[in-house]
Amino acid sequence: MPHRVFNFSAGPATLPAPVLRQAQAELLDWHGLGVSVAEISHRSAPFIELAAEAEADLRTLLSVPDDYAVLFMQGGATLQQALIPLNFAAPGQAADYLVTGHWGQTALKQARPCVDARVAASGAESGFREVPARGEWRLSGDAAYLHVTANETIHGVELRERIEADAPVFADFSSSIASEPVEVRDYGLIYAGAQKNLGPSGIAVVIIRRALLARAGQPRAEILAYASHAARDSMLNTPPTFNWYLLGLCLKWMLAEGGVEAFGQRNAARAARLYAAIDGSGGFYRNEVAPAVRSRMNVPFFLHAAELDAEFLRQAGERQLIGLKGHKVVGGMRASLYNALPDAAVDALIDFMREFQKTHG
Amino acid sequence: MPHRVFNFSAGPATLPAPVLRQAQAELLDWHGLGVSVAEISHRSAPFIELAAEAEADLRTLLSVPDDYAVLFMQGGATLQQALIPLNFAAPGQAADYLVTGHWGQTALKQARPCVDARVAASGAESGFREVPARGEWRLSGDAAYLHVTANETIHGVELRERIEADAPVFADFSSSIASEPVEVRDYGLIYAGAQKNLGPSGIAVVIIRRALLARAGQPRAEILAYASHAARDSMLNTPPTFNWYLLGLCLKWMLAEGGVEAFGQRNAARAARLYAAIDGSGGFYRNEVAPAVRSRMNVPFFLHAAELDAEFLRQAGERQLIGLKGHKVVGGMRASLYNALPDAAVDALIDFMREFQKTHG
Repeated sequence: MPHRVFNFSAGPATLPAPVLRQAQAELLDWHGLGVSVAEISHRSAPFIELAAEAEADLRTLLSVPDDYAVLFMQGGATLQQALIPLNFAAPGQAADYLVTGHWGQTALKQARPCVDARVAASGAESGFREVPARGEWRLSGDAAYLHVTANETIHGVELRERIEADAPVFADFSSSIASEPVEVRDYGLIYAGAQKNLGPSGIAVVIIRRALLARAGQPRAEILAYASHAARDSMLNTPPTFNWYLLGLCLKWMLAEGGVEAFGQRNAARAARLYAAIDGSGGFYRNEVAPAVRSRMNVPFFLHAAELDAEFLRQAGERQLIGLKGHKVVGGMRASLYNALPDAAVDALIDFMREFQKTHG
Repeated sequence: MPHRVFNFSAGPATLPAPVLRQAQAELLDWHGLGVSVAEISHRSAPFIELAAEAEADLRTLLSVPDDYAVLFMQGGATLQQALIPLNFAAPGQAADYLVTGHWGQTALKQARPCVDARVAASGAESGFREVPARGEWRLSGDAAYLHVTANETIHGVELRERIEADAPVFADFSSSIASEPVEVRDYGLIYAGAQKNLGPSGIAVVIIRRALLARAGQPRAEILAYASHAARDSMLNTPPTFNWYLLGLCLKWMLAEGGVEAFGQRNAARAARLYAAIDGSGGFYRNEVAPAVRSRMNVPFFLHAAELDAEFLRQAGERQLIGLKGHKVVGGMRASLYNALPDAAVDALIDFMREFQKTHG
C-alpha cells in the first residue's frame, strides 16, 4: 500500500483513495483499448459514453431537473465569473452581487468590465465574519441576476438560508457542491470548480436553467457562449478528458457512499465536532465567524498566539496531517473537510489540537 | 506489461509510455508526500517547483528567448483564439487571418465578434489543398496582427515557409509545436493545445513577446487578460495541476530523446515514408495536398473507393493500429504522427496498407 496522509488542503484537495487506485490500475490500458483514457479522442464512442455517464451521475447525485443543462467547462470558477455577465446581462445592465468573502469579491471584480455590477450587500465591514441580514440587501429592480457565493473557501462563511429574489440567483458552489442536498430550482445557475468536492482541478461544472440560455448577452466569441457549449454537449472544443474521467469516478464513488444525503449528515456532524473543539478550547483556538454562517467545508481557525503557528504545522505534519496552513488573506489555520476526507482525519486533527494545547497552553 | 496498441489519434493523442508508467507509479504518493500530485495546492512549494521546472524545460526545448513570456492556460487553443483579439486589438481595429484549413476558419470565427477580422488569403477555393502564394495575400496596413495556422490538423496542410509581415505574426501551433526547431522570434505569439505533441488535453501553452503584453486591448475581465496571467506565473486562479504535471513529464521525455532537432529529423523521415507509400500506391491510396505544404504531423488519405473504409479500419484495428478514421469534415483516413508515436507504428501502418491493397486492389 502506498503511504497516504490526511490531507486538509482547500483545493486541489484530497481525492477518494478508491478512485486513485482505479485510475492507477487502468492508466496505461483503459477498458482493454490498449491506450490510456487520456489518449483517446473525445469524439470516440468510449469517451462519449464516459461523458454521458458523468452527466447522468451528476444529475442523479444533485437531483438536477431536466430543464437545467449540465456543462463541463475549462477555466475554473473564475472563468465562469467572467462569462456570466457576458452571457446573461445586456451591455450596461445591472447585476447584483452579495459579497460574503474573498470569492464574492473576485466574482464582482471579474464582472465589472462588462456589466453594471452592484454590491447588494457586503460582509466586509464585519471582516467577513457575518452575512448582512436579508433586510439590509439593496436589490436592483432591473438586475440581470443576483450573484452569491454559497460557501466562502477562504473566510469560512456559508450561506445557510434559502435565498429568494426577483432576479435569478447565480451561485458559486465551488467548495460546497455535493456536500449536502440542494434545491437546484432555487437557482438560475450553479457553478463549481471541481477541485474541492468533485474531483481534480482543470474542470468546472455549470448547471443552468435552460431558458436562460436564450438570453442575448453581449457580443462574444462562440467559445465564450454557454449556449454553444450546451448545444455541443460540452465538446465545442477538445475537453479536458482525463479530468472529466477522474470527475466521473468521483461521482460514482459519492453515489456508492450514499449520495448527498449521507454526505450532508456526515459533513454537518464532523464540522460540529471540530467547531466544538475550537470553541471549547478556552480561547487557545478561535474561529471568529458567526455560528449561523460557519462553513461546514472550510474551518479557518487561529491559535491564541500566532508565534505558535509554525510549530503547530510542524507537529501536525509529523502526525500525517497536512494542508492546514490558512490562506494568506486571513492567515492562521484552515481545515478543509471535503467529502473525500475520511472522518478519521477530522478526529485525528481534534486529538492533535487537544494534545498541542496541553503541551503549549 | 499492459496491453498497448499503436495509436494514430489526432488528439487527445498517444503519450510516451515511460511518462504514463511514471505517472502510474506515483499516482497515490508523489515525491513521498503521501498524496497524489493532483491533491496538493498549486501554491505549495512542491507544485511551484514543478511548474517552474516545466517552464524552464519548455524554454530549453523550444529555445524561447527571455523577452518572451510562457503561459500555461486552460480552455484549449480555441479559447486563445477568442482571447487574442480581446488582448491585442483595439475595438474595431483590423486583424489579418491567413486561412489554410478548418482551424484557420475557427480562429477567424472566434475573433469576428470583437475585431475587424479580415481574410488575408484563403485556401478554401482549392479545397484547402494549397496555400495561396505570398504574393496573393492582402495584408492590412493597420492590422493588429497576422494570424496563421502553422499546421492544419484536419486538412493536413503545414506552412513550410518563413512568414514575414509588418504586423506581428500570431500562430496556432497546436499540432506541430515541438515537432522540429522553430525560430520563436519570427512570431509575436505562439499558442498550442497540449493534446497533440506536448501532453494531455486540458492545458495549453502560450508564448508571447513580452512587449505585446502592454497593449491595451479591449475591456475584459482580469481572467481574460494575458498580462494578468503572466504577472501571476499562470496561477491567477487554480491551474489544471495534473495536466501541468503530465505536460512536464512529456517535456522531460522529449529533452531526453534529443529535443526538437532529433524529433525534426525523425518526423520528416517517417512522414516522407508514409507519403511515398501513398503516392506509390498507383492511386489505391491518395493524398491531395500540394507536396510543398503537406503536413509532417497529420497525414489525411483516401482509399480509392470509400466503401472500403470500414473494412480498412476494421483490419487496422485487428493489427493494433487505431485512431485512423479521418475527421468528419473531410472523411477518409488520417494518420497523426506526433512525437510520442513510435517509428515502429508508422512502419506497421505502411506494411498494413500494402497488404490491404494486395487483398483489395
